Amino acid sequence: MTSGSAGGYPQHAGVQPTADIGRLLLRCPDSHGIIAAVSAFLADAGANIISLDQHSTAPEDGTFVQRAIFHLPGLPAAIDELQARFGATVAGRFEMDYRFAEAAKPKRVAIMASKTDHCLLDLLWRNRRGELEMTVVMVISNHPELAEQVRPFGVPFFHIPATRDIRAEAEQRQLQLLCGNVDLVVLARYMQIITGDFIEAVGCPLINIHHSFLPAFIGAAPYQRARERGVKLIGATAHYVTEVLDEGPIIEQDVVRVDHTHSVGDLARLGADVERAVLSRAVQWHCQDRVIRVGNETVVL
Amino acid sequence: MTSGSAGGYPQHAGVQPTADIGRLLLRCPDSHGIIAAVSAFLADAGANIISLDQHSTAPEDGTFVQRAIFHLPGLPAAIDELQARFGATVAGRFEMDYRFAEAAKPKRVAIMASKTDHCLLDLLWRNRRGELEMTVVMVISNHPELAEQVRPFGVPFFHIPATRDIRAEAEQRQLQLLCGNVDLVVLARYMQIITGDFIEAVGCPLINIHHSFLPAFIGAAPYQRARERGVKLIGATAHYVTEVLDEGPIIEQDVVRVDHTHSVGDLARLGADVERAVLSRAVQWHCQDRVIRVGNETVVL
Amino acid sequence: MTSGSAGGYPQHAGVQPTADIGRLLLRCPDSHGIIAAVSAFLADAGANIISLDQHSTAPEDGTFVQRAIFHLPGLPAAIDELQARFGATVAGRFEMDYRFAEAAKPKRVAIMASKTDHCLLDLLWRNRRGELEMTVVMVISNHPELAEQVRPFGVPFFHIPATRDIRAEAEQRQLQLLCGNVDLVVLARYMQIITGDFIEAVGCPLINIHHSFLPAFIGAAPYQRARERGVKLIGATAHYVTEVLDEGPIIEQDVVRVDHTHSVGDLARLGADVERAVLSRAVQWHCQDRVIRVGNETVVL
Amino acid sequence: MTSGSAGGYPQHAGVQPTADIGRLLLRCPDSHGIIAAVSAFLADAGANIISLDQHSTAPEDGTFVQRAIFHLPGLPAAIDELQARFGATVAGRFEMDYRFAEAAKPKRVAIMASKTDHCLLDLLWRNRRGELEMTVVMVISNHPELAEQVRPFGVPFFHIPATRDIRAEAEQRQLQLLCGNVDLVVLARYMQIITGDFIEAVGCPLINIHHSFLPAFIGAAPYQRARERGVKLIGATAHYVTEVLDEGPIIEQDVVRVDHTHSVGDLARLGADVERAVLSRAVQWHCQDRVIRVGNETVVL
Repeated sequence: MTSGSAGGYPQHAGVQPTADIGRLLLRCPDSHGIIAAVSAFLADAGANIISLDQHSTAPEDGTFVQRAIFHLPGLPAAIDELQARFGATVAGRFEMDYRFAEAAKPKRVAIMASKTDHCLLDLLWRNRRGELEMTVVMVISNHPELAEQVRPFGVPFFHIPATRDIRAEAEQRQLQLLCGNVDLVVLARYMQIITGDFIEAVGCPLINIHHSFLPAFIGAAPYQRARERGVKLIGATAHYVTEVLDEGPIIEQDVVRVDHTHSVGDLARLGADVERAVLSRAVQWHCQDRVIRVGNETVVL
Repeated sequence: MTSGSAGGYPQHAGVQPTADIGRLLLRCPDSHGIIAAVSAFLADAGANIISLDQHSTAPEDGTFVQRAIFHLPGLPAAIDELQARFGATVAGRFEMDYRFAEAAKPKRVAIMASKTDHCLLDLLWRNRRGELEMTVVMVISNHPELAEQVRPFGVPFFHIPATRDIRAEAEQRQLQLLCGNVDLVVLARYMQIITGDFIEAVGCPLINIHHSFLPAFIGAAPYQRARERGVKLIGATAHYVTEVLDEGPIIEQDVVRVDHTHSVGDLARLGADVERAVLSRAVQWHCQDRVIRVGNETVVL
Repeated sequence: MTSGSAGGYPQHAGVQPTADIGRLLLRCPDSHGIIAAVSAFLADAGANIISLDQHSTAPEDGTFVQRAIFHLPGLPAAIDELQARFGATVAGRFEMDYRFAEAAKPKRVAIMASKTDHCLLDLLWRNRRGELEMTVVMVISNHPELAEQVRPFGVPFFHIPATRDIRAEAEQRQLQLLCGNVDLVVLARYMQIITGDFIEAVGCPLINIHHSFLPAFIGAAPYQRARERGVKLIGATAHYVTEVLDEGPIIEQDVVRVDHTHSVGDLARLGADVERAVLSRAVQWHCQDRVIRVGNETVVL
Repeated sequence: MTSGSAGGYPQHAGVQPTADIGRLLLRCPDSHGIIAAVSAFLADAGANIISLDQHSTAPEDGTFVQRAIFHLPGLPAAIDELQARFGATVAGRFEMDYRFAEAAKPKRVAIMASKTDHCLLDLLWRNRRGELEMTVVMVISNHPELAEQVRPFGVPFFHIPATRDIRAEAEQRQLQLLCGNVDLVVLARYMQIITGDFIEAVGCPLINIHHSFLPAFIGAAPYQRARERGVKLIGATAHYVTEVLDEGPIIEQDVVRVDHTHSVGDLARLGADVERAVLSRAVQWHCQDRVIRVGNETVVL
């Protein structure tokens, strides 16, 4: 029982955000005076700060992360200059990684899937209902089966066969479609290996959904093994994709209760429900610029 | 965090049950010897008992309910005679209400909806995936909007306008479609009053999904009132429909966690997720003959 | 399944907070420039802002609340002057209610109980383990039974009989013990009415734990009524006490899953587990100055 | 959010069960006629069957397990003869492992602990409240610290130092206390290795509670590693002890939600809450004869 919790009304009202709402995300070594410096910068720039959320990973020598939401009339015209000026006046002093974003601009998202439909359809359906701040610009699949279900949503479906033998060629074709066109790639039960080269070349984050509760039962036949061990909970994990398979920073997890009456097939069905719930939360939080990576962790502000 | 728990492998394997699996459901005043009498009857009839689940509502003067699953070669031909013989030899002695059912025969279900799609689509979608032991024979709506979304599932969609002024006429038209054709009516966010006359005439159970966690916040604007009270959990309740609005026996409930950052709209969106999960569990349990009504309660075996 | 979530490391490290960590809580009509004004004030005062958490209840004409954590060398000596200066320079301009607090100063808490021990003992036990930022300065009970269990914790136990007939006298005796000595009164299953006069006179907030999930099943025999209605979830609600019985702002809620096999006694036992978990979270959040009341809601920052 | 669910009123009313309520537990290869044979045996013996719960692990060649509750006047005098006759007439035919038990006889339990008190105290406290159907006959610890907290419960506390170097001698002393005196050993955060020799010699089941959610994070510093991986859920697992460390059949599991604001210390504190809840449920289910081991799984009836 978990909520898609949030951090203040703007990202909720953000379903129809006004054009003048901006977000500033930053990460830097923790030190004195960061919050005061950032809020002074925004006030000087004529922005009204709507919310500041921050976190420091440790009392000493931690990493500081922050998400500021602000209102600045004329933001779309001003954002590039704002970005540059912040870099010159604040970011350098505190060794910050940072990024400004317009709340009104939905993330451009590509979804990659194979034959299983539950995660893919749940994302498309929630997006049509206005629950996700994203535009799905394409679906890529290594199988043709899901085309018919995707097209009614008005989203282009590209079938690119992919197996171990033609991986390099398949990734090349995928990259031609993706590069420059998307802000996020969601692996919605895409059952092929993603290479480190692909991750580097695609130039945007990838989110994956993992069946079963990481780090438990990595590898083949997880529900079979869960059944044999008599587990009472199964779950799902949404995480950013890194070169190390299934070891990237966790964004969200959840579980469902099971017992001895559930067959391996039942576990898979119940697992599918958790997977789509967990994936949709992770995608929404990412699209709201709420997730900041620190080492192999995430901070969800 | 809840599971669609179950009571033994047959109803799971039951997604493709063999033709010879039967279910016996019964309810009677508790007394000595019931279990022995039922199991002796089934053994004498040549049936192999796969499972017996039972419950007594109180240590003294309680009501006894039982669900037996059995395997009997040639069940489809034998079930009527079995039903009659059980009545003559066992049921009378213990004052039982009882019913035999074939696991292989999916329930014929009509779904009634208005404009909101989440519960309706979730049922249609899960059913297409083979998760529900039912055949959806029709969708009836008092609005035309959902026709386009229903038809790709191959299910007839009937638009019957219904308002307070034409309620009697609308219910008459609904009954002409439903009577004799369905084993269950699911109200999947159907926003019209159902009269006691309709409930009696339709001749099968009705399941309703109630937004918010009964018995809290009955009536109008539940999410607005939940917001003003600062509740930290919102939920949904699936229940059988009785003449007293929203007071019928509860089949399933669940909640989702919320906090001050959630607007009334967020509460409604999160509530919709709980509603569809709760409704689909309640419908599946009913279709598996797992739900027995006792007074204003249910026993889910 | 819920966590005692928190809002940044200081209140966690706060189990042994340094003497120089301060908290500023404020509430005012939302308007432009509040965050910048507060952060500028703190920076000017020589404080390093560790975290700022805020919430606005509505996009237009909402109420703004904020909790700031800061580090200021010499805070204990400076806090009164800080409080006065903030009033003169910032609070007036924005019509703020506000309050400065030292993280190192645990709240002085009185627990009132009757005969039931689970909530009382859980608070005493967690506090001894260092999980709660409070000092329990007394336990008041209208029955003598719990004295033996309380005394090993080193906390004074006062037995003040209280019934409807002697309510005024009993409240008078309670107030003599409480007034000026406590920052919070926790009603840990105290089964007597609290009058509006008492609430006003005691001069500090009161937190109550309510059996069953508000607003459902207010009144007598809630578990019996829940049983008869066949509910599948029971819960508990911790809330601030107002003159209207059981209608005060909700701080925390949780539920536990039940089914037809649970007797009324089982519901009460499981309910007791939820009650103590919910109450201890609400008390800890209050003691961390994380709960701000807005109308009949709470914001937990 | 989980319940201590149960399987019928007798084991609940069982907190004060009558002397004539019996339980029959059995396990055998699945085949036709078992349920009929068992119920016929009990009926012939003059017993009234209160409930039969059963499970088969697979549609073909599965293992069948059953728990029968029955009422037989004069059970305490008759149980040995019943056990023998069942063996002669039914058990042999179906190759059954089986066991009769009196519901009125609480299990004799030894709790082994080290320095951490939360699991130990929770068991003692719940037992004093009458929530657990057991008698705690001794607490054994390899440290003296917990003696003071145990003694007010009226339970003998034995301090037996145990380190790697003196393991054989320590286990010898433990066995002298345990053998023949206990029906169950609960390892309530007992931080020493248990040898296969000990498990064999003690002659009764052992239940262990594992911090963190098995099979994830086995080994040292689990909360530290969970923190570094950014997990969003932590949990606990109660399982029977086998020779393979932490790999025995799982009885119960649960999780609690966490986020980036929780330090490693917070994770441990929240983990402790889950541990004591999970362990107490597992112990109660075992004491109610509800848990049957099948391979490396458990069936909780």
